[in-house]
Amino acid sequence: MGSREFARGRRIVARLSHGGDLLAEIAAVADAHGMATAEVRAIGALSHARLAFYDQEIKAYGEFDVDGAVELLGLLGNVSRRDGATAVHVHATLAGHDGACVGGHVVPGCRIFACELILQELVGEPLERGHDEVTGLPLWRGL
Amino acid sequence: MGSREFARGRRIVARLSHGGDLLAEIAAVADAHGMATAEVRAIGALSHARLAFYDQEIKAYGEFDVDGAVELLGLLGNVSRRDGATAVHVHATLAGHDGACVGGHVVPGCRIFACELILQELVGEPLERGHDEVTGLPLWRGL
Amino acid sequence: MGSREFARGRRIVARLSHGGDLLAEIAAVADAHGMATAEVRAIGALSHARLAFYDQEIKAYGEFDVDGAVELLGLLGNVSRRDGATAVHVHATLAGHDGACVGGHVVPGCRIFACELILQELVGEPLERGHDEVTGLPLWRGL
Repeated sequence: MGSREFARGRRIVARLSHGGDLLAEIAAVADAHGMATAEVRAIGALSHARLAFYDQEIKAYGEFDVDGAVELLGLLGNVSRRDGATAVHVHATLAGHDGACVGGHVVPGCRIFACELILQELVGEPLERGHDEVTGLPLWRGL
Repeated sequence: MGSREFARGRRIVARLSHGGDLLAEIAAVADAHGMATAEVRAIGALSHARLAFYDQEIKAYGEFDVDGAVELLGLLGNVSRRDGATAVHVHATLAGHDGACVGGHVVPGCRIFACELILQELVGEPLERGHDEVTGLPLWRGL
Repeated sequence: MGSREFARGRRIVARLSHGGDLLAEIAAVADAHGMATAEVRAIGALSHARLAFYDQEIKAYGEFDVDGAVELLGLLGNVSRRDGATAVHVHATLAGHDGACVGGHVVPGCRIFACELILQELVGEPLERGHDEVTGLPLWRGL
């Protein structure tokens, strides 16, 4: 276990673009405000979703589509850095018309219907992701 | 996409009233502390839940009841203003006795069994909701 | 309903130990930084999960296992004090390989595959839990 203290930075409230891609929009907000490291929280609705599940045995993500409109019950995660670029790592919990929930790791292909986003900047040496041998995941280094 | 920076204000921790209505209690905490704009986060349990799903085609919410006791796994959203009044917009993820999840947009009728709430005030020109033609939803203006 | 304002303290970002127990790791981060009261937020993945559901009629938790690897879509809750010790109260929303969600109150037995955690310290008189007659739960006193 490793941990590090960050100073609080700016707090941004955003209304994401109808029809935009969820991951791309979050990265755009972070980039527009020059945030290297931030916490992400959002609620809203998607007109289509594409998610992934990490197979811990074979160490690979499998992607799947969620057809139809869904409520975005909760989007949680963070913005950090990977290979010199903005890396958005967020997990989504969604609900269909009967309330049944589906969720996973967010990948490109989530189409925004409406989304209310909060970015809380974390000020300090930026968190950088790099390949972790044990899990196969791009985890934070130096923590 | 539009975004705006807010200054952080007060952080309130609340224990909501057993038997109270979830939406009304959150609004009461915000009003008691004079908060116009705030982030909302909570966990707890409900003795009854009533949720809604937004039909993106016909642009209307359909409400449904969730019978029986449930864990409140996560309540995420915000407080802002609409037509001069406090508007609480939160989405809930719930779980039944076997862990199966159901969730949606929170409407009146969610009865609190126990609830631990955090309100993080956002200081700046208050966020106001108004009718959005594209989605049919009361989205934030001026963002 | 009772509420109290807390001052913001330190913000800690942690990468929890692969193979560690989720509750024990969160308590260890709080203890390592000397935090009596804090908010908890995390995403990640678990190789095994054990959750609980509170039966509001008989006032007792029933525990159940979630077999196999799962995405940790959202972990929300707090750190406070109970009987002089660090008490971690968190609820988890999980998803399996097909995205289906399961969740509940987190108990010992959740094995971490990877976990990105944020602890936001709340500075003020520490929140203490004690037995609540109405619900049978260890709720916060003095709120």
